[in-house]
Formats: sequence, C-alpha cells, structure tokens
Amino acid sequence: MFFDDLIEKIRNKNCACVVGLDTDYESIPDDFKEFFPTDENGVLICILEFNKRIINAVKDIVPAVKLQVAFYEVYGSKGMDVFFETARFAHQNGLYVIADVKRGDIGSTAEVYSKAYLRKEHINAITVNPYMGFDTLEPFIKDCERYGKEIFVLVKTSNKGSKDIQDLKVEGKFLYEVVAKELNRLGMGYAGKNGYSFIGGVVGATYPDELSKIRRIMYNNFLLIPGYGAQGGTAEDVKYAFNPDGLGAIINSSRGIIYAYKKENHKGKPFYQASRDEVISMRDTVNDAVKGFLMEVQR
Amino acid sequence: MFFDDLIEKIRNKNCACVVGLDTDYESIPDDFKEFFPTDENGVLICILEFNKRIINAVKDIVPAVKLQVAFYEVYGSKGMDVFFETARFAHQNGLYVIADVKRGDIGSTAEVYSKAYLRKEHINAITVNPYMGFDTLEPFIKDCERYGKEIFVLVKTSNKGSKDIQDLKVEGKFLYEVVAKELNRLGMGYAGKNGYSFIGGVVGATYPDELSKIRRIMYNNFLLIPGYGAQGGTAEDVKYAFNPDGLGAIINSSRGIIYAYKKENHKGKPFYQASRDEVISMRDTVNDAVKGFLMEVQR
Repeated sequence: MFFDDLIEKIRNKNCACVVGLDTDYESIPDDFKEFFPTDENGVLICILEFNKRIINAVKDIVPAVKLQVAFYEVYGSKGMDVFFETARFAHQNGLYVIADVKRGDIGSTAEVYSKAYLRKEHINAITVNPYMGFDTLEPFIKDCERYGKEIFVLVKTSNKGSKDIQDLKVEGKFLYEVVAKELNRLGMGYAGKNGYSFIGGVVGATYPDELSKIRRIMYNNFLLIPGYGAQGGTAEDVKYAFNPDGLGAIINSSRGIIYAYKKENHKGKPFYQASRDEVISMRDTVNDAVKGFLMEVQR
Repeated sequence: MFFDDLIEKIRNKNCACVVGLDTDYESIPDDFKEFFPTDENGVLICILEFNKRIINAVKDIVPAVKLQVAFYEVYGSKGMDVFFETARFAHQNGLYVIADVKRGDIGSTAEVYSKAYLRKEHINAITVNPYMGFDTLEPFIKDCERYGKEIFVLVKTSNKGSKDIQDLKVEGKFLYEVVAKELNRLGMGYAGKNGYSFIGGVVGATYPDELSKIRRIMYNNFLLIPGYGAQGGTAEDVKYAFNPDGLGAIINSSRGIIYAYKKENHKGKPFYQASRDEVISMRDTVNDAVKGFLMEVQR
C-alpha cells in the first residue's frame, strides 16, 4: 500500500529498475525455441518458460517487473493464462508486479476492469488511461484503498505523438500538467510511511524537461518511466524523475533487457545471463546519474 | 470496408440501433440461471447461452452488436473464450460486430492489440482511446485498410467526468473538437461508396449539443453513440448524430435492452422477448426522432 512495499524492495536492492516482459515469440532466441513444439501451445509454453528464466535471472537485482498485456492478449484465452501465470511466478519470487493494461472506461465498466486485474492477488499495480475523465479512476482508487494496491495513470507518454493531445495548451498550461496536478490532488489525504499516495503517473524517459516539471507537480506521487533504452531514454534523462529522498520513480526497460542477448557485448552468453548483466549495468548507470544529480541539487 | 457493410445492414433493417452485450451474470434472470451449474464453467456457459438467446431474438431487427470486453476479461482466459465465441455467433448470424476494447498504446504495442482484435475474422470494428496521440492510431488504420475493418475513436464520452479532459479549452476550442477534427483529417482520401471513411468516433448520447457540433466536424465519419437508455440519452438527444442522408450514426443501448425483462411493461415475457420488444420500440422511437429532425433541417 502507498508504494511502501515497492519502496522496501527498491531500498533492499538499491535499484529502481523494472524489467518489462513484453515477450514477443519472434524475438526469443532460436536455441531456446527449439526445445518447444511450434504449435500454439508450444509457443505459449515457450513464452512462459522464457519469462521464468528472465525472472529467475533478475529477481535478486530488480524490485519489479511490468507485463505488457497486449503481448499475451494477442493469443486469446490461452495467452491470458500465460499472463497470469507469469504474474504469479514473479510475485511469488518476491517481485512487485505491474500489469500494463492501460484500461479506462465509464464507472460501471472500470469497476469490472479493476476486478479483472487490480484485485488479483499477484498484481500490485496497473496502468490506467485518463482520457475519459477522473470519475473513471474512482473504482480503481477504491480498490487501491481496499486491497492495498497502486495505479499508474498516463500523464506524458514516451511516443512521438504524445504531443498531439498531452501537449495541447490549456489556459497557459500543457494538458499533461493539468492531468498531473489533478492526480496529485486526488492522492491528497492518502499517504504511506514514505509519504507517497497510491496514485502514480506514467511519464516517458524520452521527455526529460516534461519529466522534471511533472516531478515537481506530482511531488508525492510515484512515477513509472517507460522509454528507457530501446526507445531512446538515457540515465541522464530519467534522473529528473527522482525526489531528494532518492525515491519516487521506477525506470522500465523492456526490449533492451529481455533481448539483451542480441547485443554484441553479450555474445555467447545464455539469453538470461545477458539480461542479468544488462540490468545490472542499467541499475549502476541509473544510480550514478541519480546520485550525481541529487548531490548537485542539494549542494 | 468504409462502413459500407454496416450501412447495408442499417438500410436493410431500417435500424441504426446496436445491442450492447455487457453481460453481467448477476443481472441474468434467475429462471434462466437455474439451468446451469454455479461453478465458474457453469457461469460462463450461462453467459454465452444468454448472449446467444439475445442475438437470436434481435438479429433480424438490429444491424450490429457491441461487446464490452471488460465483462469477459474479468473471468480471465475462459471469459475471453466466451467473448470470441459470442462475436463468432453474432457475426455468423449476419451482425456487424464491434469489440468495445478502448485500447491505445505506443505503436509497437498497438500493432499487437490490432492483431489481437481488429484482425480477427468475426470482429468488424474496435473502439480506440486517443490519449497517447494520433501515431498510436496508425497500426489500427493500416489494418482497417488491409483487412476492410473500421475503428471508433473516443471523442466525447457519455460519463459525467468526460468534461475533465475532453472539455478543456485549447485555443478557443474544446479538446474533443481538436480530436474530432484530426480524426476527420486522418480519414481524408479514404472513402467508400457511401462516402464514409473507416475512422469513426465515439460520442455520448448524454451530450446532444456536443454531438451536434461533432457531427458537423466529422461529417464523413461514422459515429457510435453510447449512453442511450440506462445512462439517460434519449431519441431526441441522438437525432443530432445523423447526416442528411439519414446515416452516419449507430446508437448503442446495453443494459436497457439486455435486461429489459426487469421493466414493468415486459413482465411475464421470456427475457429475450422483452429484449426484442424493447429494441423494436427503441428502433421506432429513434427512427421517428431522426425522420422528424431531418425533415425539419431540410425544409
């Protein structure tokens, strides 16, 4: 609750990195695929086993994993079994589990979505789309309170087109600032022992200036930062996501970590070892950048 | 493609109403439930059989059904089997099938969502959330072109809180107008024999003034209008959604139709007969309002 569980894991591991399990069968190494049949069941077992290998390789390094549900939904019902089984395995291995579902709908439907994901035992947090309005967040907020969960609401996303709606100017302010401010307000009155509310925001690593601005507006909200690595975000970009307490953000990398085996410097390693080495390097790079930045601002 | 298939069904049936299969087990009549076991499998078979009864009762009246995916997702993988089986049954019974999924994500993920729903044989259209930007629509638009499908993008939704973001003022315009204009522009160059592009919009029946404005901006885009009936929208509200050709909109009612058996005037009827009578009455009411309105504007 109130991100206290996540914060404990971040502190214990001295790491604010998240591994994104956006697992695409095409990108799984051939020498691992060959252990499984190529029919649909075989493909799904292969994806699940790939995820488990990655989780085992990074579970003592990172505090959390993020599952992009689309990559499982695409296989229909059996894909959803793999999604929930991956969540269960990660959670039972001590990881904080984020279901990246980006749902959002009118109240009566949002409640059903909350039941479908947020209330699930092995899921700690979900991502939510705010376009339909802040009343659509209420069922999720209620469940955060009731079940000790958290949500990350889209504020400024990592893609190029995020400017189209999120950067529109509303009475001198950017729309993402309006959303950020309201999310901060909605979390008022709810705070855990580390001072954070259970409403977080999603802000892309690809927009460091916006990130810095949103950090100040959402000062007691956690931020989930996608867009690191494959999408172009660097440690120097994401350092602005952190508060003076060294907390307040988790940085996600998906393709950059789980397919690290494709990189020249990991050649010859098993894929999970490449992922482990890559996430250790990401952790150290991010920690150095954040440490340097916080020393500078505190001087 | 280009809504020509939907338009043919609308013309043949002289009906622009859509039945929303937001099927909630709690609301299924007890005397139907008792035919099925109450374990999870029994509940799911009951939902599927309920949907099939409704589809059979309305298939000669309405051109389309809309499936709210949340009500199936909540049952995990087995629920998704019922979702796709309901879509298949509706499609094979000559209905246009809208998957109300409201997905939206960065390009690489949107492509996977498109594969998960829009490319499916028995699904004609999906709903999409535009908050992340217009580049996130591209994979869906490509698939519309390639597979002869359509999308309905959220513009102004039916809930109270839709004002929070959608009604923000951007350079003198409401945000929903900015979205509407861009959706119209994105559809330029694509038009079927009835003059419509394959990009549609979602506008709530609960906002007739906004609906009227959006109709003028999105003049060659189809509109999907939720919020009729249970949410408060009336035929007098939705008439503004129609073009002078009598086309351009479909009006969805979910709870008002599928649980019509609960209403006093349908007492004693089997639930599917109540739904059939209710949707016939909705069709006539909407047709009268639209006819009156179009005669008035054309005078």
